[in-house]
Amino acid sequence: MSAPHPKGSFRSQISVREAIAVLQTHAPTLGAETVPLTAAADRVLAEDLASRVDHPSCDNSALDGYACRAADTLGASADAPVTLRLVGDVPAGSVFDGTVGPGEAVGIYTGAPLPRGADAIIGVEFTRALGGEVALTKPASGDDVRPRAQDLRAGEVYLKRGQKLSPAALGVAAAMGYAELPVVQKPKVGILATGDEVVEPGRPIREGQVYNANGYALAALVARAGGEAVLLPHVRDDLGALEAALGRLELDLLLTSGGVSMGRYDLVRDLLFERGRVHFWKVAMKPGGPALFGHYGELPVLGLPGNPVSSLVVFELLGRAWLQRALGSLSRLPYDARVTGVAETPFRGSGFKETFARATLTFENGGYRARSTGNQSSGVLRSLLVADALAVVPPHTDILAGERLELIML
Amino acid sequence: MSAPHPKGSFRSQISVREAIAVLQTHAPTLGAETVPLTAAADRVLAEDLASRVDHPSCDNSALDGYACRAADTLGASADAPVTLRLVGDVPAGSVFDGTVGPGEAVGIYTGAPLPRGADAIIGVEFTRALGGEVALTKPASGDDVRPRAQDLRAGEVYLKRGQKLSPAALGVAAAMGYAELPVVQKPKVGILATGDEVVEPGRPIREGQVYNANGYALAALVARAGGEAVLLPHVRDDLGALEAALGRLELDLLLTSGGVSMGRYDLVRDLLFERGRVHFWKVAMKPGGPALFGHYGELPVLGLPGNPVSSLVVFELLGRAWLQRALGSLSRLPYDARVTGVAETPFRGSGFKETFARATLTFENGGYRARSTGNQSSGVLRSLLVADALAVVPPHTDILAGERLELIML
Repeated sequence: MSAPHPKGSFRSQISVREAIAVLQTHAPTLGAETVPLTAAADRVLAEDLASRVDHPSCDNSALDGYACRAADTLGASADAPVTLRLVGDVPAGSVFDGTVGPGEAVGIYTGAPLPRGADAIIGVEFTRALGGEVALTKPASGDDVRPRAQDLRAGEVYLKRGQKLSPAALGVAAAMGYAELPVVQKPKVGILATGDEVVEPGRPIREGQVYNANGYALAALVARAGGEAVLLPHVRDDLGALEAALGRLELDLLLTSGGVSMGRYDLVRDLLFERGRVHFWKVAMKPGGPALFGHYGELPVLGLPGNPVSSLVVFELLGRAWLQRALGSLSRLPYDARVTGVAETPFRGSGFKETFARATLTFENGGYRARSTGNQSSGVLRSLLVADALAVVPPHTDILAGERLELIML
Repeated sequence: MSAPHPKGSFRSQISVREAIAVLQTHAPTLGAETVPLTAAADRVLAEDLASRVDHPSCDNSALDGYACRAADTLGASADAPVTLRLVGDVPAGSVFDGTVGPGEAVGIYTGAPLPRGADAIIGVEFTRALGGEVALTKPASGDDVRPRAQDLRAGEVYLKRGQKLSPAALGVAAAMGYAELPVVQKPKVGILATGDEVVEPGRPIREGQVYNANGYALAALVARAGGEAVLLPHVRDDLGALEAALGRLELDLLLTSGGVSMGRYDLVRDLLFERGRVHFWKVAMKPGGPALFGHYGELPVLGLPGNPVSSLVVFELLGRAWLQRALGSLSRLPYDARVTGVAETPFRGSGFKETFARATLTFENGGYRARSTGNQSSGVLRSLLVADALAVVPPHTDILAGERLELIML
C-alpha cells in the first residue's frame, strides 16, 4: 500500500473556518422561480417583498361590541350606565353607510371598519342592549380601534431576500397580498455512496458488507437544508464506472461518502486528483478529518468520509455552508450558531484538530448541561440518534467536567 | 347584538392544560402505512424496529493500514522498527482467504474484515512498505479493530414506535437493513378561513377586507406538525354554505379560523352549538381566548380565533396536542418543552389568563434573555416573524425586567 501522490496545489489540514470559506467561494448564485404560497414553506425568498396593501385596510374594531363617540360615554359605570341610541350594525366585511352622531352607537364586530363619526369601541360584555338602545357600564375607548396599516403599510418591505419562509412569513406574505412568491431554485445535490462493500438496504448482506446508511441520512439532511437530494445508484470502486455515472448528471453539487481516505481504493480522491481539481483535502476536524473538496469539470464535489457519523458531521458543518451560500440564505451556519453550557462529563480534544463530540443536553437552573454520548468512535451512528448537540472542543484542549463549553445544536 | 345562548354542557375558561387533555381525549388512533426510506423523513414510526443484522457484520478495521498479530509488534519504534512479511491485501467488501501467521501482515482498508489469525491493526502512517515487507514504527493495537455488532446487534430494537424519523434515524434504519418503513398515516387536517371580509391573496381588496393570511400560515404549521394540510376554499358567513362544504370532506380534523367569538356572525360557534357538540369554548389564555373545540357529526373541529397571532398560538399550543396524540408521537408538546431565561423587558399578565407573549431571545453568559416584541396586540402577525419564543406569564402575575421566566421556543 502506498499513500497517494497528489498533483497540483491544494490546501490540507485547514481549519473548519477556512474550509467553509473555500466552499463558499465555489458556491454558485442560483436563479429564482415563482411558486404558489402552498409550495413555498421553508424555501428561501429570492427578492425583498413590499406589502401591496395597508393591513388592516382601514381603522377597524379590535372587539365585538359597539362603535360610538368616546365623549358621549365619559363616566359610564355599572351604577350609572350611559344609554346610546342604536342606529345600525356593521359586520366584518361590510361598511356602515351613515355617520355615527352624538348619542348614537352602531353594533360592530371584530375587524369591521370603524363607522364615520365614531372614535371609540366598547366591548359587548360591558353593555346591555334593550330595544333600540344600548346601555354602557364603562366608557368606550379609542384603544380598541385598530388603526389602518397598524400591522403592514403598503410599499414597505417586511420580508427580505434570503429569508427562509416560516409559517409566520407565509402568513405575512399572504396578508401583503401575494398568492405566489419568488424563491431561490433548489440546488440539485447528488448523493453517491462509494465502496465495493456497500449494499442497498432490503438486499441480503454478506460478512464484510454494510448497508448504505449514509445516502439516506444525507438525503434527508440535504432536503432539510433546502436542497433537492438526488440519491444516485451506488457505484463500485471503479473509476470508469464513476465517471460514466457523473457524465450523465445535471447537478449543482455532488456529495460522495467514502473513498476520500489514504487507501489504494479511495475512488473519489483519485477522481479529483487525477481527473479534476482539488481545493482542499483533509480538514483539521474530528470526526471528518479526510474531507475533500474539488471540482470534476464544472461540478463541485464534496467528498465526505465513509463513516456515518463523520459524513453527517461534515455535511452539517461544511456542506451546509455551500448550500446556504448558494441559496443566499440569511440563516446562521450551524458552525456559528452556538450556545454555551457546562460539561457534565469530560470531553477530550484531538491534538491540533477541532473536535465535535456528540452530546446530550439537559436544561437546568437556566443553562445547558452537556454529557458525552460515550463512545465517540465515528462508526457509531446510533450515538447521533440521541445526541442533542455537538460539543466543540478546541485544538490542543481537553474540557473537564464542570468547565464551560460551546455547543452546536443538532 | 346579543350574546349567543349555548345549549348542552360544555366547559369554559378552562386552563391550557385542561384544554390539551380534552383535545387528546378526542384524538383518534391513526393507521399505519409503509413508505420507502426516501419518503420517510420526519414521519412518525408506527412500530418498534429491531435490527435485521449485526453492524458491523464482522470484526473489521477502523483504519487503512495492516492487519497482523499484536504480539509480533511489541516494542516497535521509529528507532527499532519491526518488519513483517506481506502475505496479501484485503479491500473493504472482500474477505482475505488465508490466515495471518506469526511474522505476517496483510494490507487492509477501513471497513474491511479482519483476516483470520490477525488481532491488531497498524495505521499506514506508522509503516513503510518495502518490496514484500512492511516495517512498523509503532506496535499494532487491537483498539483499531471494530468488533462485530459494535454499533447494532441483530434483533435489538433501536428505533421506537412514536419516534420522529430524523436524518440520523433514517441512517440507522438503513443500516439495520430496512428499505421501507412502517409509519403512522398523516392525519388529514382541513383548514377553513371564515368571514365575509376575507379575500384570497392575489385578488383585489376593498376597504374593510383582509387577505386570508391564517390559512397559509396554518397549512405550513400543520405540515410541520406531521399532518396533511387540506386548504379549503374560503366560506362566507353562511351556515348552509359551511355545512354543504363540510358534507363532502373526509377529514380527521377541521381547523377553522374566525367565527368563534361572541358576535352575531360567528359561524363556527353557531355550527357547533346548533348542529354539533361543544367540548369547550374559551380557554383561559391570551392570545387565543375564544378557542372552541367540538364535534360536527364525527368530525372534530378546533375553532381558532380569526386574529392571525391568536390562531397560530392556539394551533401550536392546542392543535399540536391533538396531532401529536393522533400520530402517537413521543415528542414533547411545545407547551411542555420549556426553557427558562431572564426577562430584559417587563411582560404583563392578563388577570386569570395564562399569557403567551412573543419574545426575541439572546443567549448571553450561559443563559437566555428575553425581550418583548413590543405591541402584543393579537393582530400583529409581523411580530411572529421576529419572535424566537413565547414568554409564559402565569395568571395573576406580571414579570418584571430582571426576573426569571419560562419560554416556549418557536
